Amino acid sequence: MPSAIVFQSDFGLVDGAVSAMHGVAYSQDTEMKIYDLTHEIPQYDIWEASYRLIQTVEYWPEGTVFVSVVDPGVGSSRRSIAVRTSSGRYIITPDNGTLTHIKRMLGIEEARIINESSNHLPHSELSYTFHGRDVYAYVGARLAANQISFEEIGEKAEVDSIIELPVVDPVFEHNTIEGTIDVLDVRFGSLWTNIPHDLFAQLSIAQGERVEVSIRNDTRFVYQNIVTYAKSFADVRAGESLVYINSLQNMAVAINQGSFAKAYNIGTGTSWRIKLKKAPRIIYEN
Amino acid sequence: MPSAIVFQSDFGLVDGAVSAMHGVAYSQDTEMKIYDLTHEIPQYDIWEASYRLIQTVEYWPEGTVFVSVVDPGVGSSRRSIAVRTSSGRYIITPDNGTLTHIKRMLGIEEARIINESSNHLPHSELSYTFHGRDVYAYVGARLAANQISFEEIGEKAEVDSIIELPVVDPVFEHNTIEGTIDVLDVRFGSLWTNIPHDLFAQLSIAQGERVEVSIRNDTRFVYQNIVTYAKSFADVRAGESLVYINSLQNMAVAINQGSFAKAYNIGTGTSWRIKLKKAPRIIYEN
Amino acid sequence: MPSAIVFQSDFGLVDGAVSAMHGVAYSQDTEMKIYDLTHEIPQYDIWEASYRLIQTVEYWPEGTVFVSVVDPGVGSSRRSIAVRTSSGRYIITPDNGTLTHIKRMLGIEEARIINESSNHLPHSELSYTFHGRDVYAYVGARLAANQISFEEIGEKAEVDSIIELPVVDPVFEHNTIEGTIDVLDVRFGSLWTNIPHDLFAQLSIAQGERVEVSIRNDTRFVYQNIVTYAKSFADVRAGESLVYINSLQNMAVAINQGSFAKAYNIGTGTSWRIKLKKAPRIIYEN
Repeated sequence: MPSAIVFQSDFGLVDGAVSAMHGVAYSQDTEMKIYDLTHEIPQYDIWEASYRLIQTVEYWPEGTVFVSVVDPGVGSSRRSIAVRTSSGRYIITPDNGTLTHIKRMLGIEEARIINESSNHLPHSELSYTFHGRDVYAYVGARLAANQISFEEIGEKAEVDSIIELPVVDPVFEHNTIEGTIDVLDVRFGSLWTNIPHDLFAQLSIAQGERVEVSIRNDTRFVYQNIVTYAKSFADVRAGESLVYINSLQNMAVAINQGSFAKAYNIGTGTSWRIKLKKAPRIIYEN
Repeated sequence: MPSAIVFQSDFGLVDGAVSAMHGVAYSQDTEMKIYDLTHEIPQYDIWEASYRLIQTVEYWPEGTVFVSVVDPGVGSSRRSIAVRTSSGRYIITPDNGTLTHIKRMLGIEEARIINESSNHLPHSELSYTFHGRDVYAYVGARLAANQISFEEIGEKAEVDSIIELPVVDPVFEHNTIEGTIDVLDVRFGSLWTNIPHDLFAQLSIAQGERVEVSIRNDTRFVYQNIVTYAKSFADVRAGESLVYINSLQNMAVAINQGSFAKAYNIGTGTSWRIKLKKAPRIIYEN
Repeated sequence: MPSAIVFQSDFGLVDGAVSAMHGVAYSQDTEMKIYDLTHEIPQYDIWEASYRLIQTVEYWPEGTVFVSVVDPGVGSSRRSIAVRTSSGRYIITPDNGTLTHIKRMLGIEEARIINESSNHLPHSELSYTFHGRDVYAYVGARLAANQISFEEIGEKAEVDSIIELPVVDPVFEHNTIEGTIDVLDVRFGSLWTNIPHDLFAQLSIAQGERVEVSIRNDTRFVYQNIVTYAKSFADVRAGESLVYINSLQNMAVAINQGSFAKAYNIGTGTSWRIKLKKAPRIIYEN
């Protein structure tokens, strides 16, 4: 029985591109289990592609093959690679930074450079713009269906050589943690930071206590306020802000039933810095 | 063989949340058949979640497990429940009104309160914001895969205790039916009312005859005009309005190849009232 | 084992319509493999439905059943048909032009008129507005599951009688090719023309050489400029325009990492004409 294959891209769902990839996969083995991570990655946004993989791959069983196609360099000399994570999942992708989070946070056990001359959908030689269909879906499906081994994909590559996007690590200093805003929970407008919950724990803030949150970008201070550290949205009032542990077990900031990102025009990336510190206790005069 | 599992949520498809739920389901049984109802429920819109379930569940076979996660109260004391409908489908959802239409129109045979301490994805204890993945997908998949019985989900709850949103029943009086605009056929801009076709039949209007349609909301009259009662869109001209029986066999109002909702700024909910009555016959002078 | 069934429509994914079709298909055979081409065809846009089919069907194996429901005439006397392509795929659709490209470019081997009285989801007689669910999904699934033969769908129709939308063929004259802009690669804003790469080859333009591109519609000249003919996007700078061979092996025009369609307000259809000719070589004075 073939393993599951899970597709991700920046193609959107309005045309036939995703279905052509599904068809190529299904044609390799009609028992193929085909799923989609998302096809709504913003165009060319390699960072977000990387983030959505780390958000998802561990919830699929060992042996699952992920095919991620966010590929601004299609047709250039960028390498196409296949990797096995240290937890036994496979990812097929252009080597352009899409593996940044997987490499850093989960670990890559082995990498192979896709030999495109031996691993290419038959009769697709003329088209140089749709490697998602002609190379990645094809190779991924053949791997998932055990028609080729991981080794047959191509020559070994050094894991160190896999391209990483620049990442800024969170810093703990003077009872303050500074991190970056990595990504938005788009639909709900929450900010997801790169600050792990166990680093935050060093601030010794209990649930129900208050956090001073400051946000700045390259050019200005964007936000500074005192926010409740809550176990979940329901612990604060509708419209109230909260700091919480998100589903990746990093610190996040939100407005209950509102959009923090829209309310304060927050963006993402390494220029968006967020500081968390314990807020002074407020004593109300009687 | 596992039953099908069908997911619904307000998460959208732009990030990894839906795929994480799929992965949790697939990990319970790699023969799992995983489908999606929709993930584009407007955020926190329990009413629409309820409506999309009644629109769909009966088209899936007995034993199908639906997992619906529109959950503004995640982390609060709201109950998580599993129900078996009187037609033998299962629905897993927060008990927040999502079952309103199912309970009233289809009937619930039995309800169980999910025991979250025994039914929780292993190693997900720290996160309190993603019960869709950690509880609902997990329980739903285990039920679909026959790894737990319905009874093992948790203690029995009284069907009467399941939360319902307020619903206004249609009223027949003085040869007029007054109902509410329950939901839009979003893409085509049609209004779907809560007036069943057999109540409408009591107005004795034949297909091809004309209906007086009046629409008002809390604050004003929105629309009043004479519209043809047609079997289908093709019976009126492009751009012409019609009253028809929709695919749920309730009365609906549309513009053929246009959007009635956009044309007249129509909303939905119990404050949006619609009246239908037989229009006087028009006699043209010669 | 049932064949795969692949759905396309203009219903969008925000409500329960697509899931009801999936449920009808799954109910015929719980081993059914259900996929989606796209449900984001612009409402009533038969041309685009036709184009997305030709873009996709050949990537699925023989025997695959496509169900395409873009149906402005639902409820009218328009025929419902099932066809077998000359390559052995099946398509179920209203006969309204949806098969234009398939008929012209791939070929139709045999057509059958769906006998709706014998091929209708049981108990769906009252609704006349959702043939996608009540007729097309039902017939398609029964065919995919081998519960009915192609012949049992209904009487044979002459292939010649299948409705085609007007198509303008590309013309080669005076060292210039004039074609139409058939469709957009929506997400990336590229123009896909109806000019095949082998017709373009007669202009004897080598990769890296330059093409004069002119675009006009009914009312005005829209664009005229010199553009590089490139193998792929990576061969030009970010922000530079290019002419290339798309994944259907026709000529296309794009801006690398930009949107050509948005930049110049380009539309699609037979009134949008594009001319390609070899550009004079530019000699820079020293």
